[in-house]
Amino acid sequence: MATRRRPPSSSTSSAPPIADEVRSRDPKPSAAAAAAAAEDPPLAPPKLGFVAAASALFFVPFFYLAFVHYPIEPDLRRSIAISVAMSFGGFLVALRMIPVAARYVLRRNLFGYDINKRGTPQGTVKVPESLGIVIGIVYLVIAILFQHFNFTSDSNWLVEYNAALACICFMVLLGFVDDVLDIPWRVKLVLPSFAALPLLMAYAGHTSIIPKPLIPYVGVPVLDLGWIYKLYMGMLAVFCTNSINIHAGLNGLEVGQTVVISAAVLIHNIMQIGASTDPEYKQAHAFSIYLVLPLLATSLALLSYNWYPSSVFVGDTYTYFAGMALAVVGILGHFRHFCSSFLPQVLNFLYSCPQLFKIIPCPRHRLPKFDPQTGLLTGTKDGTSLTYSLDCLVGAQKGLFASNF
Amino acid sequence: MATRRRPPSSSTSSAPPIADEVRSRDPKPSAAAAAAAAEDPPLAPPKLGFVAAASALFFVPFFYLAFVHYPIEPDLRRSIAISVAMSFGGFLVALRMIPVAARYVLRRNLFGYDINKRGTPQGTVKVPESLGIVIGIVYLVIAILFQHFNFTSDSNWLVEYNAALACICFMVLLGFVDDVLDIPWRVKLVLPSFAALPLLMAYAGHTSIIPKPLIPYVGVPVLDLGWIYKLYMGMLAVFCTNSINIHAGLNGLEVGQTVVISAAVLIHNIMQIGASTDPEYKQAHAFSIYLVLPLLATSLALLSYNWYPSSVFVGDTYTYFAGMALAVVGILGHFRHFCSSFLPQVLNFLYSCPQLFKIIPCPRHRLPKFDPQTGLLTGTKDGTSLTYSLDCLVGAQKGLFASNF
Repeated sequence: MATRRRPPSSSTSSAPPIADEVRSRDPKPSAAAAAAAAEDPPLAPPKLGFVAAASALFFVPFFYLAFVHYPIEPDLRRSIAISVAMSFGGFLVALRMIPVAARYVLRRNLFGYDINKRGTPQGTVKVPESLGIVIGIVYLVIAILFQHFNFTSDSNWLVEYNAALACICFMVLLGFVDDVLDIPWRVKLVLPSFAALPLLMAYAGHTSIIPKPLIPYVGVPVLDLGWIYKLYMGMLAVFCTNSINIHAGLNGLEVGQTVVISAAVLIHNIMQIGASTDPEYKQAHAFSIYLVLPLLATSLALLSYNWYPSSVFVGDTYTYFAGMALAVVGILGHFRHFCSSFLPQVLNFLYSCPQLFKIIPCPRHRLPKFDPQTGLLTGTKDGTSLTYSLDCLVGAQKGLFASNF
Repeated sequence: MATRRRPPSSSTSSAPPIADEVRSRDPKPSAAAAAAAAEDPPLAPPKLGFVAAASALFFVPFFYLAFVHYPIEPDLRRSIAISVAMSFGGFLVALRMIPVAARYVLRRNLFGYDINKRGTPQGTVKVPESLGIVIGIVYLVIAILFQHFNFTSDSNWLVEYNAALACICFMVLLGFVDDVLDIPWRVKLVLPSFAALPLLMAYAGHTSIIPKPLIPYVGVPVLDLGWIYKLYMGMLAVFCTNSINIHAGLNGLEVGQTVVISAAVLIHNIMQIGASTDPEYKQAHAFSIYLVLPLLATSLALLSYNWYPSSVFVGDTYTYFAGMALAVVGILGHFRHFCSSFLPQVLNFLYSCPQLFKIIPCPRHRLPKFDPQTGLLTGTKDGTSLTYSLDCLVGAQKGLFASNF
């Protein structure tokens, strides 16, 4: 949960807007709002060079595998090409909309101060919050439009696709409500479980699983788990959602981890399609590509503003959205090895357990310590894998981390 | 669009919360937030007597028709009974959650002053805004849970049901984003069209229509309109959404009109089911009942707080949500006479056209005039059917309206 702090009493933030019991069709923003917007300096330009380099790292192998290396059916290639084109469109729209939305959220006093830069001039800059809402909406629009190019109303996939949209949309909504209203923990724990339900209902894939090394001992190659498998999937959705969120706190880390996982999932998918001859198996992985490509593209747009030094923050809106989108991609792509993509998050969770379950005291902010003198972040004894990693690293590596986050 | 006003400079509203770039698992609200909450007086109790009377008016005929009058199949009756029970649960949850959420939105400075009470002590009370978010989330949770009782993963209905959930959820999200950020008109006009797309893709009903009086002239009883019919449905969704919103401005009017339309749709559905022998036709109308019952129940909970004098406002969140939910109910219930439920809204739109299209000047607030001396609302020359009606009414009727709104 993002527990908000009140600003210091000396803060001269502009007064919040107030709603009348009235609707108006006047398109002009009020003079006061315009004045408030004029106060805020424009956003730093996006770090497109960095994003281009990162994109090349992911997309060059993907394009090579999809369009050169594997003999994939023309129809499937066409669908992937459409998805790529639409995702690129989404990237451009998100890139264009983030500065616009940043003005809107600042006007509504949705901003934060970067506590990892406390004590420096950068630590006093108002950084717009919750920009994940732009990414969530752009992603949903792309996903909705895409089905018009690839599905007919009698398609089997349409059930799962619409369930995926409903789940992701519900998580974006809950994330944004959380960012705005700070909903309490007990509500937040329950609602994502509901958000994952349409997906479980629509899931038409296998519910049987035996880990390969165990097959000789169990004696049967297939064990149908039925509702237990569905329960596992529901818990996976809740885990993914929270595991992206729990890692938040450093510039670019929420989006960065999503980009890395998405890229890995994307390349894994195309390799599975290339290596398989089973049409249904190929379709499942193609489905996963259609959902993960726009996630990767829109996240890269957000990363260009959120990378160190962050000019926008992503908010719970983004972490919940990205977590649920990845869970949906994993579940509906019928992945068997999906959990391995989340290995760092699983380790982080295990390492965090003593503090999460209050066995040892849990501080309010589990973050590295910032030293304004050296400009470096150093590790703390807080139980996150990140602070632990920083605590273990020395010398040159410390400098490397500090310059990157 | 709800164009917000800044508060007067003498306002001593509490400072807005600020987000750090940090996530915390501390469930305790900050002391400042608790103090701010303590400042606000508790919400007036819900007007349950009025709501019970209104409910009796709608539900007694419905129960009589569904469980006594018509010989409906036991399976269908069981599903309807489950839907009724879940909707009643939703009513209770919404009733319980609205005061809680009201504290949260006030803490975040989402409130308005009732300009129809300007000049009286009631006009200076901070009324919490956007309580439609509670109704939207409770509705979605009921709708998601309900499918577990009535659908299996190979059900034909599941496609349409999930598409409906995705559409409604997207509209709740856009409504809440609008309430918080005041998104501009051009964006608001485009996005609901996207939100309606999953529905159109999933729509598996007829796309042919000939108005009965025209059949002798056209010569064929069925004319397949194909994509034109889908375009019509998309425009219907956008129309419904905006037509509930355009009527906003008086205490209880947004929710009141939704309750009246929902109740009419509910009773129409059960009559169609009772009178038909076609299983598919019955299923379509049962589907419509499953979606409209929770809408009616949760809206009644909101109405108990929003009826004159309003202790909460509903926000664009509610008007968009209710409009899209009704459109979905109409489209997926394969209604032929659905538009007639919206007749007052259609008339209001036609009467508003000269101002909407800027043929005559459009004031920022098209509302009746409030006279603090008499406590009465009087009509104005603004082009809404409501102000026109008030303008036409005299004497006793004026008093009646003033005491009710």
